[in-house]
Amino acid sequence: MLVSYQSEFSDFIRDLQDRICAAVENMDGEATFREDTWQREQGGGGRTRIIAGGQVFEKGGVNTSEVYGRLPDSMVDYLKVAHADFFACGISLVLHPHSPLVPTTHANYRYFELYNPDGVVVDQWFAGGADLTPYYLFDEDAAHFHQVQKTAADRFDPTYYPRFKQACDQYFRNPHRDEGRGVGGTFFDYLRPTPERDGQHWKEFTMAMAEAFVEAYLPIVARRKALFFEKKQKYWQEIRRGRYVEFNLIHDKGTLFGLKTNGRIESILMSLPPTVRWDYDVLPEPNSPEARLIEVLRQPKDWV
Amino acid sequence: MLVSYQSEFSDFIRDLQDRICAAVENMDGEATFREDTWQREQGGGGRTRIIAGGQVFEKGGVNTSEVYGRLPDSMVDYLKVAHADFFACGISLVLHPHSPLVPTTHANYRYFELYNPDGVVVDQWFAGGADLTPYYLFDEDAAHFHQVQKTAADRFDPTYYPRFKQACDQYFRNPHRDEGRGVGGTFFDYLRPTPERDGQHWKEFTMAMAEAFVEAYLPIVARRKALFFEKKQKYWQEIRRGRYVEFNLIHDKGTLFGLKTNGRIESILMSLPPTVRWDYDVLPEPNSPEARLIEVLRQPKDWV
Repeated sequence: MLVSYQSEFSDFIRDLQDRICAAVENMDGEATFREDTWQREQGGGGRTRIIAGGQVFEKGGVNTSEVYGRLPDSMVDYLKVAHADFFACGISLVLHPHSPLVPTTHANYRYFELYNPDGVVVDQWFAGGADLTPYYLFDEDAAHFHQVQKTAADRFDPTYYPRFKQACDQYFRNPHRDEGRGVGGTFFDYLRPTPERDGQHWKEFTMAMAEAFVEAYLPIVARRKALFFEKKQKYWQEIRRGRYVEFNLIHDKGTLFGLKTNGRIESILMSLPPTVRWDYDVLPEPNSPEARLIEVLRQPKDWV
Repeated sequence: MLVSYQSEFSDFIRDLQDRICAAVENMDGEATFREDTWQREQGGGGRTRIIAGGQVFEKGGVNTSEVYGRLPDSMVDYLKVAHADFFACGISLVLHPHSPLVPTTHANYRYFELYNPDGVVVDQWFAGGADLTPYYLFDEDAAHFHQVQKTAADRFDPTYYPRFKQACDQYFRNPHRDEGRGVGGTFFDYLRPTPERDGQHWKEFTMAMAEAFVEAYLPIVARRKALFFEKKQKYWQEIRRGRYVEFNLIHDKGTLFGLKTNGRIESILMSLPPTVRWDYDVLPEPNSPEARLIEVLRQPKDWV
């Protein structure tokens, strides 16, 4: 018999959303989040929070949602499960800093439950991850981002970080460019109870990883946000943001799934960067910082 | 027994490429095309021509390619045909004007052949179309673009224009936004010989439609290129360009097929606009020109 974590995880993500938004606003020093709440016709809704035009953050969103009801056909196909009632909740965030020297980040943590006709939980899993997309690569920033997540994961099992780090490198990749979207982080999906690891274990693990996000990312922003940058570095950031869009629109399962299941478009596409460029065949100069970034994105590194 | 149009159509598209590029340069008055020729390892290659930073055209490409050899597995799956040798050639163009008052256009015309082991043509078809994406809608421009194509098509069969106009509205659509990409044009695919219409007929039709492109588009550019526009109109163009990117990366079969079959990335993605914006939940003011554009994109109109 499976225990439901529905209300506990929902409460957790809403509280975390408040805390992350407060920390981001504090780091920005100028902009504040605007909130849009929305309802889903078939059950549930969400709380979209958007920041824009800040001193540090050019655009970002920190969203939560809890949706439930009868599993739509598209989700039955996608998840390869039987028709049933479901509950899903999650927090999802993307932050696009103005400065090309401050990396973009994305994170999400979510929980899913399925019920039998008597309302008993028959399947459940946790999922999530956080990854970093620099435009100029400071190795110590990538190492810090990974180290914080490794430390959080190691408290549960030392095999988790290497496994979920590799999954992240594999998932956040533009195969048509032969490049990673960024320098990775962690990514995990379908963490279901097993005889060795119960739901409680995965719930605590997922919460711990979600809690680690602020410490993994914001110290990097603090280090880089006041650095001077040149116009040509902003240009390079906008070209690289194009690769971010390519990943999200061509490859990202979450985005495509959201669009194909009539998710709330503006909450899904808040992940796209504010200003983006595509120029023809932009190639970095040999031995430049831009060239080194691409070299690292081609061949994922171990950062810790 | 099918007649091959391989060399005739190849010669035609290369000559047309020269003439379109000359007409576009002439209209721009400043920028000229840069040419990249490329080879395909398994057979064939292409001639990519890019214009950028012009007086009128901010970015554009007019490309031709001829590829042949053994049909890759991905194409066997996609086309639902048997393993065979193939030949394909086409011209493909996208022009992104600087001014938000000048519409973006896209066109392509192509020919495909399959052979049996003796090298005899066993299947063949023509395909193509041209469509218009305004940011501010001048009804007379949309009407002109459609009228020129209708006139060209009517010389072959008066049922073609209505059929291919409807196919264009259906194809160039962002269902996730419930909007057309633009105001349409024509779109046709798999024009195969039948007892009533032989390959010669479809070849002549496709060539006539391709020939009509310059007359359909450039007079619109001539009318609008010198008009004054405001900064907020440029902003709106960049937001709408985001929808163009969404269509090309999420829905366009040609783009996705190219990326998944290891096509030449930079030649495929030359279709993406130069500068693009995504802001959260941008809504036009009621009764504004921006609101009217969206209204028309929601519900395709008959223009002629």
